[in-house]
Amino acid sequence: MDNSELIEAALEAAIAAQEAPEGPPRLAAAIRHSVFPGGARIRPHLTLAVAQACGADDVSLAAAAGAAIELMHCASLVHDDLPCFDNATTRRGRPSVFGAYGERLAVLAGDALIVTAFQSLAVAASKNPDRMGPLMGTVAAGVAAPSGIVAGQAWECEPRVALTAYQRAKTGALFVAATVAGAQAAGAASAPWRALGEWLGEAYQVADDIRDVAMDSEQLGKPGGQDAALGRPSSAAELGLSGAIQYFDQLIAYASASIPSCRGSAQLRTLVRQESRRLVPVELTRKLVPSVTRISA
Amino acid sequence: MDNSELIEAALEAAIAAQEAPEGPPRLAAAIRHSVFPGGARIRPHLTLAVAQACGADDVSLAAAAGAAIELMHCASLVHDDLPCFDNATTRRGRPSVFGAYGERLAVLAGDALIVTAFQSLAVAASKNPDRMGPLMGTVAAGVAAPSGIVAGQAWECEPRVALTAYQRAKTGALFVAATVAGAQAAGAASAPWRALGEWLGEAYQVADDIRDVAMDSEQLGKPGGQDAALGRPSSAAELGLSGAIQYFDQLIAYASASIPSCRGSAQLRTLVRQESRRLVPVELTRKLVPSVTRISA
Repeated sequence: MDNSELIEAALEAAIAAQEAPEGPPRLAAAIRHSVFPGGARIRPHLTLAVAQACGADDVSLAAAAGAAIELMHCASLVHDDLPCFDNATTRRGRPSVFGAYGERLAVLAGDALIVTAFQSLAVAASKNPDRMGPLMGTVAAGVAAPSGIVAGQAWECEPRVALTAYQRAKTGALFVAATVAGAQAAGAASAPWRALGEWLGEAYQVADDIRDVAMDSEQLGKPGGQDAALGRPSSAAELGLSGAIQYFDQLIAYASASIPSCRGSAQLRTLVRQESRRLVPVELTRKLVPSVTRISA
Repeated sequence: MDNSELIEAALEAAIAAQEAPEGPPRLAAAIRHSVFPGGARIRPHLTLAVAQACGADDVSLAAAAGAAIELMHCASLVHDDLPCFDNATTRRGRPSVFGAYGERLAVLAGDALIVTAFQSLAVAASKNPDRMGPLMGTVAAGVAAPSGIVAGQAWECEPRVALTAYQRAKTGALFVAATVAGAQAAGAASAPWRALGEWLGEAYQVADDIRDVAMDSEQLGKPGGQDAALGRPSSAAELGLSGAIQYFDQLIAYASASIPSCRGSAQLRTLVRQESRRLVPVELTRKLVPSVTRISA
């Protein structure tokens, strides 16, 4: 199986474990709708890539750890779409969970996904129980207060926002969890991998800001221009579109340079470059701000 | 420390780990408001009592497992009070999290509590890593689909409700988690302890139905008469008040009889009887339906 297949299989195993004839069928359908079909699965790909660069001896654990992080990401999207936050009835070009199943099942499906993330990770780690505690801690820290994605979302409820803390928590935290968990799933030292997650998380946030400004709703598969409409902080608003694109390229360069030397470091650098082109395509730059020269292209 | 102090200390440790100067302060306050001051802490008391009846060799793990289950219970209350469910601005005689902090922070505090439950359990189980996987599985099953409390709440979103599945999931699941986790935290066989959780969970649900009918909002610390107002299934509506009280006593008798023989079984039976009197007081029965003779009183 290639990495995409490993990830989908791990997600399928986690979701299938929730589905049983004795359970409420609309909840099961809402949970499945939250996870399949997915987006780019960028976080679990990162977890698997780091695990493989570290010489993964338990690929299924790495896939399960990546899947757990993806489930947390899916849960956050489902709750972000609720009426009290983005009030979004569409997501990835089709009805959001809220749009398709209503507000109550969107709350419950998000809750269930958070639980399933830990549940599936505990099952997968049973063959390597010494790795279970560290992996649980990593996934939890990526989501919980004070610095996980829940805290990131909660900064939007504060009268004053600490902008760096907000962006690091809202997007960076799960990228850090993805790289750190990749190393932990492979039984490798995890501290050297934090920086890669931090740089990629920040780059991804900047890319998201750029795309929110530059692409229309049809291309995005969700409503565009939301940052400006909702008054959310945005690097594209702060630096202008060309400034934001140059900043993005800089962050990708830092990410690449932070990769610890290991067996698979060259491959991982290639993956980071490919991913950066997918996030902020060269053609999009040429069309929007032809004066900008892309350093990483 | 007595059991109440052990439980409060375990909860405090779990919540304090979320609080840091770099996190969003209103989220931290909403999380703390969700957990302190608590109600009867009936589930963690049950976990500790079962662990002690099994000869607990790691009391702090049993307290942490009970606290994890209590955090799940608190999370469910916070989400149940949201406008799309009970729309309750008060809880336990003071503002609910939704009432005090608004809808968005109520969603996020509930999410954070679910994560904290697993996070704190992983830390507490690090000294007995062989117990971590089973405990994680037990806590997760008590919450997730197909049969945990999230599934229980989701039955309210189905066109047709399987009443037994609904009540078992909505209330019973966390009681089963409480007894099973107590045995697991003590390193004992857990299967013989399921029945106690099942009987107590059903008894607790019946007691809740009775109290919803029999007590006014001030005594309950939350709006009374909600089952009838919201058209929810209720054993008091189905069996009448005196029938429901007799059924409750029967369930308590079954619970008591199901306790496996072990060092602490006599003590545990006493605890079950005391708890039943707290839930449906003899004085309340005398006042409301004087014709009923309480078998367990």
